[in-house]
Amino acid sequence: MDEFEKRTDKILARINELAGYSEDQESLTRTFGSRAFVEAGKKVFSWMNEAGLQTTIDNIGNIRGRVLSTNKSDKTFVMASHIDSVVNAGKFDGPLGVIMGLDLMEHLTTSGSAIPLNVELIAFSDEEGVRFHSTYLGSKVVAGTFDKELLYKKDAAGISVMELIQSLGGDANRLTENAIAAEDMAGYFEIHIEQGPVLYEKKIPAAIVSSIAGQRRIELSFKGIAGHAGTVPMNRRNDALCAAAACILEIERIATTQKNKVVATVGKLDICNAASNVIPGEIVCSLDIRSDDDTILEAASEKIYQACESVCKKRNIVFEWNCIQLTKPVACDKYMNQLLEEAIKEAGYEVMQLVSGAGHDAVAISEIAPVAMLFVRCFKGISHNPQENVEPADIRASLMIAERFIHKLISTYNSQ
Amino acid sequence: MDEFEKRTDKILARINELAGYSEDQESLTRTFGSRAFVEAGKKVFSWMNEAGLQTTIDNIGNIRGRVLSTNKSDKTFVMASHIDSVVNAGKFDGPLGVIMGLDLMEHLTTSGSAIPLNVELIAFSDEEGVRFHSTYLGSKVVAGTFDKELLYKKDAAGISVMELIQSLGGDANRLTENAIAAEDMAGYFEIHIEQGPVLYEKKIPAAIVSSIAGQRRIELSFKGIAGHAGTVPMNRRNDALCAAAACILEIERIATTQKNKVVATVGKLDICNAASNVIPGEIVCSLDIRSDDDTILEAASEKIYQACESVCKKRNIVFEWNCIQLTKPVACDKYMNQLLEEAIKEAGYEVMQLVSGAGHDAVAISEIAPVAMLFVRCFKGISHNPQENVEPADIRASLMIAERFIHKLISTYNSQ
Repeated sequence: MDEFEKRTDKILARINELAGYSEDQESLTRTFGSRAFVEAGKKVFSWMNEAGLQTTIDNIGNIRGRVLSTNKSDKTFVMASHIDSVVNAGKFDGPLGVIMGLDLMEHLTTSGSAIPLNVELIAFSDEEGVRFHSTYLGSKVVAGTFDKELLYKKDAAGISVMELIQSLGGDANRLTENAIAAEDMAGYFEIHIEQGPVLYEKKIPAAIVSSIAGQRRIELSFKGIAGHAGTVPMNRRNDALCAAAACILEIERIATTQKNKVVATVGKLDICNAASNVIPGEIVCSLDIRSDDDTILEAASEKIYQACESVCKKRNIVFEWNCIQLTKPVACDKYMNQLLEEAIKEAGYEVMQLVSGAGHDAVAISEIAPVAMLFVRCFKGISHNPQENVEPADIRASLMIAERFIHKLISTYNSQ
Repeated sequence: MDEFEKRTDKILARINELAGYSEDQESLTRTFGSRAFVEAGKKVFSWMNEAGLQTTIDNIGNIRGRVLSTNKSDKTFVMASHIDSVVNAGKFDGPLGVIMGLDLMEHLTTSGSAIPLNVELIAFSDEEGVRFHSTYLGSKVVAGTFDKELLYKKDAAGISVMELIQSLGGDANRLTENAIAAEDMAGYFEIHIEQGPVLYEKKIPAAIVSSIAGQRRIELSFKGIAGHAGTVPMNRRNDALCAAAACILEIERIATTQKNKVVATVGKLDICNAASNVIPGEIVCSLDIRSDDDTILEAASEKIYQACESVCKKRNIVFEWNCIQLTKPVACDKYMNQLLEEAIKEAGYEVMQLVSGAGHDAVAISEIAPVAMLFVRCFKGISHNPQENVEPADIRASLMIAERFIHKLISTYNSQ
């Protein structure tokens, strides 16, 4: 068993241990602020502490461990991912980056040589946005872009972000103190499972992320006229669901014709006062559009809007389009990606670049620093699912790549 | 103020009083077995009692008041409607027929002359089927067609029909004793609001129901593959919602081309584990198809099935079609409708025949007796809604028509 195999075993053991912290017994669910989340955070805190990191929990609940440079005014290089999860999650989405980062930090502190950077490992508290329907709460605080309005958002039980922060021991008025200034950032690196099928199909253990797709989240609403399913003739109906159905097909058609440059998804659809014998009078549904090219994203979004408007006009349905999130595509840093490419080649693997269709904390951090990501192959691309899996050999490969990458990055600063 | 106006005032006062029995303060909701339902039933019981009817509550909770013929072996003529309601209901759907029936019974008993029929007024306990998702529970018991399997159906709180019957003081093992044998039935007459817009638009106070549409309730399920909305390219998706949307449009298209002989409605649609960033993997939705012509209903149903199958085959979606209710069209009795026509003409109104798109207790009773219905105009055809309204003048007109009709019917039996 080589050194990297041993380290892989330890990483997997920790990922498995972390997966034990769940809100329910049958599956893995660890949303922001839950008891399981708090306990998992304590475990990560203790691991960071044992690794000799200067460890703190910030006001939004991020667990942060630092290795300080001898020159404290040196810039900070951040490695991170998140420890919250979706409902009925897999165990690698988030924890893989945190626990591999922890291993890399351990070997950074034991290497003995002085480092010309402060290096910080962060386990972000809320990336998935399950509880408050707002993503990147943890990384937005670090980026200093956390909008105070978010403090008043409430979860299903009526608890606000502000109340939750306080119950976790944080101070909602001091979130800005936990931000890192852009001028103090050297860069950001995140290891994450691909959550897509490309690496699995191409039989490659890891890939460089060229960019992270931009995303628009839109709430669509359709207002027609509810009526008795037995008494209103077909030609006298204003059926909101039929209008929504026509729009869903237009959305699919428009996205499909963009030659794999756009994905568009209606993932939620709610019929108000739904009953099998009532013509749907009002529908609200979600629309998620993504592309790594902002111009194409903008154009597809406009085309979809026009198509839905036209469908609803013909059907006499009141249509509303309410954009609730607009994230521009993020290009990963060319220099860091160059170092990743060298590291991959030296480790003996094929170089591959991928666009990330999923959003990541790197999106929030890109506001203050150049970002880079390493995608690790996962079983059939399955994610947000208990079947999510990563082979030990791929963790080993990614660890070798990431360690080489970090040494290269440090060398850059050493030679400055 | 003429006699019928006075009676109309009393009818309206009672309908308003009954509307006060609701599960919530803000609106009218009175589902089978609720506290409000029990209290409303006691009120109707006391009114029947005061009217001199021989009043009982049967095992399913129907309130039944009888005027016995001097010859007890005479056949029974039933007037009825229901006193349960949908959620956020109007006050006329059901109670109009019960309370007008009560007025007609009062004038039947005070007229002094012997009647060659037993006449029974029934306030059915569950027509809407809100609580157990199964309609006509009350009238099925009277028709002797109540399937014992229904006893094991549970409401949202896990209470079974059997448990509810017992808590209401009924005996679930003695439901069959409350049935009336077909050979004992003279006929059935129900007054009900139209719940559609035709009388309102034609400016006619009441209409004869020629037939009640047949109805098929089908559960459709679509199984595709769930996936991350950002990472699965459009051409690699098996989106269950897109398939359902295509089917909804096919359903609409097929029903619309049947020249107003068919209506088809998807009223409920649920996405399993819906999230805005997840491609829908599984959908269950309802389908309600109705027609007054069984051949056309059958053909439309088959066409819709074929179209959905074809959509799902092309999209690689597993499609299931599960018929959960199949009610054949019910033709109303020609002889009673002839008497209704004479009554309408004599009262000075225009004769109109309508197909009922909505189902009624008359459907269940048609298994044991010839049935007739009188539809009363309602405001803009709005029903299952707090805006549901009937003008006093229309109640007065319908009362005159119904009373003439009953006298004509009794004369028939007198002359036999």
